[in-house]
Order: sequence, then structure tokens, then C-alpha cells
Amino acid sequence: MAEYEHILVKREEDTITITMNRAARRNSLSDQHLAELLVAFLEAGDSDATGVVLAGAGPVFSAGHDFADVSSRDLMGVRELLQLCTELMATMQSIPQVVIARVHGLATAAGCQLVASCDLAVAAESAGFALPGGKGGWFCHTPAVPVARAVGRKRLMELALTGDVIDAATALDWGMVNRVVPDAELDTAVADLLARATRGSRASKALGKQTLYAQLDRPEKDAYALALEVMAAASQLPGAREGMAAFLEKRAPEWTD
Amino acid sequence: MAEYEHILVKREEDTITITMNRAARRNSLSDQHLAELLVAFLEAGDSDATGVVLAGAGPVFSAGHDFADVSSRDLMGVRELLQLCTELMATMQSIPQVVIARVHGLATAAGCQLVASCDLAVAAESAGFALPGGKGGWFCHTPAVPVARAVGRKRLMELALTGDVIDAATALDWGMVNRVVPDAELDTAVADLLARATRGSRASKALGKQTLYAQLDRPEKDAYALALEVMAAASQLPGAREGMAAFLEKRAPEWTD
Amino acid sequence: MAEYEHILVKREEDTITITMNRAARRNSLSDQHLAELLVAFLEAGDSDATGVVLAGAGPVFSAGHDFADVSSRDLMGVRELLQLCTELMATMQSIPQVVIARVHGLATAAGCQLVASCDLAVAAESAGFALPGGKGGWFCHTPAVPVARAVGRKRLMELALTGDVIDAATALDWGMVNRVVPDAELDTAVADLLARATRGSRASKALGKQTLYAQLDRPEKDAYALALEVMAAASQLPGAREGMAAFLEKRAPEWTD
Repeated sequence: MAEYEHILVKREEDTITITMNRAARRNSLSDQHLAELLVAFLEAGDSDATGVVLAGAGPVFSAGHDFADVSSRDLMGVRELLQLCTELMATMQSIPQVVIARVHGLATAAGCQLVASCDLAVAAESAGFALPGGKGGWFCHTPAVPVARAVGRKRLMELALTGDVIDAATALDWGMVNRVVPDAELDTAVADLLARATRGSRASKALGKQTLYAQLDRPEKDAYALALEVMAAASQLPGAREGMAAFLEKRAPEWTD
Repeated sequence: MAEYEHILVKREEDTITITMNRAARRNSLSDQHLAELLVAFLEAGDSDATGVVLAGAGPVFSAGHDFADVSSRDLMGVRELLQLCTELMATMQSIPQVVIARVHGLATAAGCQLVASCDLAVAAESAGFALPGGKGGWFCHTPAVPVARAVGRKRLMELALTGDVIDAATALDWGMVNRVVPDAELDTAVADLLARATRGSRASKALGKQTLYAQLDRPEKDAYALALEVMAAASQLPGAREGMAAFLEKRAPEWTD
Repeated sequence: MAEYEHILVKREEDTITITMNRAARRNSLSDQHLAELLVAFLEAGDSDATGVVLAGAGPVFSAGHDFADVSSRDLMGVRELLQLCTELMATMQSIPQVVIARVHGLATAAGCQLVASCDLAVAAESAGFALPGGKGGWFCHTPAVPVARAVGRKRLMELALTGDVIDAATALDWGMVNRVVPDAELDTAVADLLARATRGSRASKALGKQTLYAQLDRPEKDAYALALEVMAAASQLPGAREGMAAFLEKRAPEWTD
């Protein structure tokens, strides 16, 4: 496993937990921090783990880009940084594992983008979410991309234009997170939802996740064209065969893929 | 009217009720069952009825595909089955009638897909919804297509990855159904919503429904380009003319189309 | 400033308020009314104001198209009217200012479309929203375009097919408006949300708003491609530079753009 300066990576059974560990910098996403996160997600993707938890150490989840890093960059330098950031978000969606955000405290700007880019998210009651660029001098252009695909349009506009923080209950109501629990129950709730989301055949789950993202924002007819071919092909895989056989024989399935 | 083995078709006034009637097999969608549903929807589409109710006999709405049917099929066989299923879903959206799901008990996998593919849905408090493939060995790839277009992204991921059942109240909160009522009031609530949705000129309503699906997941500008042409042309139809005349003359309209 | 017959335009500090002022015709959108609104929004767009409020005088917000105007038009005449209406909606989204709807009473048909087309919306408890074409002889084809992009699919179908009015609380729940307040607090709530939404660098906010609409209904990857280039370029603008410098120097920013 790679050595990291800004993050902690821990494996327990089938779960890899990646913890942003720049608490003194509010887990802001410097160039190196993003690069380490990308490597960690790629390594997790290559592993036989079934789930990945993204967490943050210290008082906040993540404050987004690190202005100390950004402010000294020219156009091409910022472009490179944003490409790295975008690649990280795409990787979280493309790896075969289920990726779940464990959100406590504030998740702002690219920190909020991280939450929106995870497959699932569980928030502590203390959590808050914001796209603060909208009240400043830059703007949360790229963070708004996955947020726009998680919440409705008027709510996106409110988040992006006002820059105000919404609390965890509002984030749940708007569909940005899947669960809100008391802070003391956060780890249990994350583990419970991840366990539910990683049951079954590993190959089938991976194909399922990747097909969901592929069909999601296509026109319905194109989405069907894709999903149909994948589903037909997947019916011949060992997992599907075993699942159906076990169901028909009224026994517990045994997954080999 | 065609003769059916797996479904019941009944017409009362302007409403056709199509009831899945394989209660012993939990209204699972075998090849023949799907074929009969497709014929029934095509026949309803050709009729002068204004609304179609899709219901299920027995303890559940529908359990989705029939594994006894699927498990013996090779790739091309499953592909054919899924094409038939997809054609049924597209037909429900393309016929001129308003199609409403009457959901009691569980609607799972392709059964949940049926609910998501109806124009409207009313659920009994006993109803439950799931994409259970996600906890097994196959995956609800095609059922997730219309579900993704009814609920938010994080909620889709939760349904598809966990395979867990959500109750009727959650389905209402997430926008998967339009009403939840006590089981004893289900028929009344379905009839009431359908009556409201089938008022007015028949031709105008049919054109309206079809244009909604055509514009729904296009970019906004393309959606306007389409909706504008349809709306301009529709203004010259008898229904629009009568509707406006009646409004201006302060009398009840009489629809002739 | 242009002279208007059907609307009132007032500027106070950085906010322009455009009030539909055909109360006797329920602020219906005749040809001339639409043309005046379009000019007013274009003029607002060219001004140095930061926000625009769209309001209605009298008992309702707007009843949509004026049947007295529409019913005498042939196909090409209606087409022209709808093109003007669509241009107004597009202009509200393309001008650099934040546009907020101040909704009291009913907003129906193209009146509901106006609300859905504003960036933000605040409704009084008395407000109601409907796409009534669905119970008549024409159909709310174009009003359904922005409404479909604000609320979920089943809810769109219910609005468009039944034509029934939903109340303000339901509109809030469905994401069609951002706030609901007692009627007496409407102006205060509009001013408060607009003030929050117009903070920060003017150039950055304008670029932000326009990029949001540009990325919103593209596939996620295309949205990122666009948002990334805009965000990289925007990082070099005076607003972004000042925002980051102020943050790092722990002082209040001063916006010059």
C-alpha cells in the first residue's frame, strides 16, 4: 500500500476507510492531498474490498480547495488542480466498490462535492453543507456539478447563489444524504448502510454501480438500450445463476464472483 | 378483446382496469404474462377509453421477473425477455390514455419498474417498493431506469445497491408515488385521481402526455423547441378552440375531440 | 428607461422590481405584456443592478396566457406568441442578475412557468400553483418545460394531467419554491433571500449563474468539462483573487468587479 502524508488508509475486513487527515487545514484539498486521495481510491478500486468509507479527521469533514494553494496559481495551474479534483470525483464513481461518505461537521465547496460524488452518504446531526463560493469572489462551478444531480434545481440555485450552509436535516430532505443520525451513532450507521449496500455477488454489484452511473443522465430510451444489454449479459454470470438457483431451491446463495 | 390467461381486463365507463392475475406466482412477469400485458396496453391504447388502471391480484402488486422463467434462458433468451419488458414499459408511456398504478403490497424489481413507468401511482399504506437485485446475484439494471427518473440520485443508489424495501410513506416523500391512503380507500383514491387526470379534451390530453415524455429528459432548450411547436399546433385543434371559447363566454366547455 | 403600459419597473439600490400590472386581467400574458416584460428584463440585464424581483399586482401573481389574445390567432400567430414567451423565460435565466419570484395568490399556466423560470422563488402562504391546461382543451406544453426541471416526474405528471392547484407548502416540499412565509412577511423574505444571493463579486456571481444553467441538464461528464474551464478561467479574475487574498489575510474582501 502506498505511503501517505495527508490521509489515513485502513482496511478492516471488506471495508477500506480513507480518512482525510489535514485537520489543522480543515481537510482542505491541496494538490498533494487530492493526489493522495486519488491514489488511495485507485488502490481501493484494485483491491478485493467491497466498500470504501470516506471520512475526515478533526472538527470538519472538508473545507474544499485550499486557497493558500490556489491563490498562487496561474490559469494553467488552477486548471491542472481542477482536473485532478475532477478525476478524483470520477474515480469514486467508477471503482467497483460502494463508496460511502461519513460526514460530520462542515462539508463545504469541494468538500460538499465529495459528499455528492459518493454513492451513498450518512451525516451526523452536526453536519452542514455549503457551496460558499457564491458569496465570495470565485464560485463553486465544479462542486455544483454533482450537487445539481443530487438535489432539485431551485435548491441548487439557493445553495450556489447564496453560499449559505444547510443543516443535516435539510440535506436529508433534499436528497443529498441518505441518513442523518446523532453524532455518537455515526460510525454504526455508516457501517450498517454499507453492509446493506455490499451484500450479494461482488461482480454483480460492481457492474450494477457502474451501469447506474452510465445510464443516469442519458435520455430514458438510451438508458434502456444500455441497461438492457448489461442486464442480459449479466444474467449469464455465476452470481446471477447462483442467485436464481438458490431462490428456486429455497436455500441461501453462495457467491463465487 | 383478446383472451388472456394471466391477466384480467375489465372496462367500466371510460376506464380500463388491467389486473395482473398470477397471484400464486406473486404476479411475477413471465414471458407470457409480459406478452399479455403488452397486448392489453396496446388494445387499451387503440380504444376510446381515457384511463388505464394497472393493478395486481393477491397479496402483492408484482414480484418482478420470474426466476423460473429466466434461469433456464441463455443470453439471447434473456435479451428477448428484457426487450419485451422494455417494450411494455415504453407502451405504457406512449399510449394516449392516462395510466395509473394501483399499488398494494410489494412492488419489487420489474414490479417496481411498472409503478415507476405509470404516469401516476397511488399506493396503499401496506405497499412497499424495492430493487432487490442489488442484494443478490443479478442486479435491477433495467428497473433502475425509470426509478432513476422518479427519485433523486442518492435515493436511487440506496434502493439499487441495498435492495432494501422502502415503505409507502417513504415512496411518497421521494416522489415515486402521488398518493398514499389506507388500504380500504385505495380504489376510491385511484378512481379520484384518475378522474381528475382524465378531465378535458381527450385529444389534448393524449398529445399532452406524449409531449411530456418527449420533452422530459432533453436539454431545456431542445424541450422548448419541441413543446413550442406542439403547443402552437394544438391551439388550432377543436379542444383548444372550445376551451378558450367556453372560458371567454363563461360557459361549460363541450369536448368533441 | 422604457415606458410601459402593463408593467411597473422600479429600482431601489441594487434591486430592480418588475411588477406585472394588469390586475384587472389577472396579470395574464398578452402579447404586449410579454413584450414589455422582455424589454424590462433585457434592460435590467444591461444595468448594474445585482438582483431582479418579479412580482404581480392585485389578487393573483399571473394567470398565464390571455385567452382573449390567443383565441383569435391562427397557427403562426400562436407560434409567434409562444416564441416571445419562451424568449422571455430564456432571458430571465441568461441575464447576469439573480432573478427571484415574489409569489402571492395563484400562479397558473405560463404564470407558473414564470415562477419555475426564476432562479429563486419565495411564496406567500396564500400562493397556489397549477398547470390548468391539463383539465381543459389546450395543454400546458411549454409551461411544463421548466416545471419538469424543478419537480420530480410523478409530480410533474400530476400537475400537468390533473390541472389541479397545489398549495404553497406542497410547492415547497416539491422544490418549486425556496421559501414559504406568511403573506405579511413576503416582501421581507424576498429581500432577505435576494440579499443573500447577491453577495460577493458581481462578475463572479453572473458567471456562476450562467454556468449553472449551462451545465444543469448536460450529462455529468460534459457538465464537468464546461464547469472546469469556466472555474479555471474565473480563478484569474479580480473577484477570485481578492476573495482568496482577503481570506488568507483574514480581512473583509472588497469587490471591484
